[in-house]
Amino acid sequence: MSLPPFQNFDRCCLHTMTTKPWSLSQAVAKYAAAGIKGITVWRQWLDGWELPAARRAIAEAGLAAVSVARGGFFPARTAQGRQQAIDDTRRAVDEAAAIGAPLLVLVCGADPGQPLAESRRQIEEAVSALLPHAQASGVTLAVEPLHPMYANDRSAINTLKQANDLCDRLAHPSLAVAVDVYHLWWDPDLREQILRCGRSGYLSAFHVCDWRTPTVDFLNDRGLMGEGCIPIREIRGWVEEAGFGGFIEVEIFSTRLWQMDQDQYLHKIKHAYLQYV
Amino acid sequence: MSLPPFQNFDRCCLHTMTTKPWSLSQAVAKYAAAGIKGITVWRQWLDGWELPAARRAIAEAGLAAVSVARGGFFPARTAQGRQQAIDDTRRAVDEAAAIGAPLLVLVCGADPGQPLAESRRQIEEAVSALLPHAQASGVTLAVEPLHPMYANDRSAINTLKQANDLCDRLAHPSLAVAVDVYHLWWDPDLREQILRCGRSGYLSAFHVCDWRTPTVDFLNDRGLMGEGCIPIREIRGWVEEAGFGGFIEVEIFSTRLWQMDQDQYLHKIKHAYLQYV
Repeated sequence: MSLPPFQNFDRCCLHTMTTKPWSLSQAVAKYAAAGIKGITVWRQWLDGWELPAARRAIAEAGLAAVSVARGGFFPARTAQGRQQAIDDTRRAVDEAAAIGAPLLVLVCGADPGQPLAESRRQIEEAVSALLPHAQASGVTLAVEPLHPMYANDRSAINTLKQANDLCDRLAHPSLAVAVDVYHLWWDPDLREQILRCGRSGYLSAFHVCDWRTPTVDFLNDRGLMGEGCIPIREIRGWVEEAGFGGFIEVEIFSTRLWQMDQDQYLHKIKHAYLQYV
Repeated sequence: MSLPPFQNFDRCCLHTMTTKPWSLSQAVAKYAAAGIKGITVWRQWLDGWELPAARRAIAEAGLAAVSVARGGFFPARTAQGRQQAIDDTRRAVDEAAAIGAPLLVLVCGADPGQPLAESRRQIEEAVSALLPHAQASGVTLAVEPLHPMYANDRSAINTLKQANDLCDRLAHPSLAVAVDVYHLWWDPDLREQILRCGRSGYLSAFHVCDWRTPTVDFLNDRGLMGEGCIPIREIRGWVEEAGFGGFIEVEIFSTRLWQMDQDQYLHKIKHAYLQYV
């Protein structure tokens, strides 16, 4: 790989979920003190906050509000269920706008009780319904393709090609894509689809972590960068080749790492970011 | 779905791994008594057998030896490791020929310590090296694409498109593909790639089971047909549309189901086969 390593944290963003034991106030203070420049806020971290106060806390610490995670979970067997997901995601758009985040990440959902093709149709319908409100709010919706092991219940959008195709069909300036190495690293067409994603103007977020061998839990056993087999720097190279120069977001769900002292963990994250991203 | 359900077990095959507690002698006797017509033998079930005796036991029970599982695990960081995998798979070819099975299933392998692209190159090299011996032995090698959640360590061949592309490149009459619904059900291009697989003459095996929600173990939590979300009959329809009329193989790894009384389990398998395949 000829791509140089990072020398600083100017493009580094952490997800509040990565340091799950910390509240929003703690995360903001700790990230800023560590020289991290961006934060992606999971919605539950906003519970109990007045949104303008959250916005001020983030901004006054010198952090960029990179995105809000997450809206979605659109498919449902009843019209009422589908409407609830749309309404909830509309509120997530409002929260992103209120804290100054330009992007809302969508985990699109799936319902194992209905055909995958139907879940995919419902996702497209819901995203389409939300786009005018997103645009009016100045928030871009970023469809995040999830690993095929989540196709049954977390997202029926499972490849970058699917996300790109969806963006092509809806052709809306407020619709984009989030690329996460955990979900996509295995894809033989990844480089080609990342380049397409950038060329089309969809590539709006880049998430990193690692895939451990063995992985013992479907949800909460992700690795810190360098602990697994994902060629993160190579994929970062493709993402930059595609024209992306935004934040690189560290998003790690790990019961094991949440059990660590989180100050020490933040130190390890910084080291791993410089060494492996 | 307009495809009719099966009325009998004329095309039904069980993998010895499905009823793991049973020895080969038990499996042969029980399957035959239950009216099942085919058996796929995992290699460890042949331990301690003279192969001609195993062949006789299977044939005399009226069962077809559908395939042997499995060869492969080709990628390795050393030339010696790669040669060992080729040699071992060569022995698996010989075992398939000796028990009268026309097909050897390949789980192609992956090595998390090297780039996926390198594992993929090594797989192609190994398969290519094995084809003359397979052809001379009258055994077809069936590449089985595995779910992307196994890309790190069990197979770097993760979509049917990849397997079809590999067969196109090697263009050999003794190379084919095994389609397993567990690994491929999530793929948005599945129907298209199944039809291509059939059209090209590669489609040589069809494996069924189901995907449970939640799935709690990466290896041994597959579902009996009907217990999960896979549209098995619809996929069977695509496979038959592609021209496949061979055995339908029930391959289920399940700690939960292995703990059942296996006679009762066999009864449930037969019921599920008629109802959901």
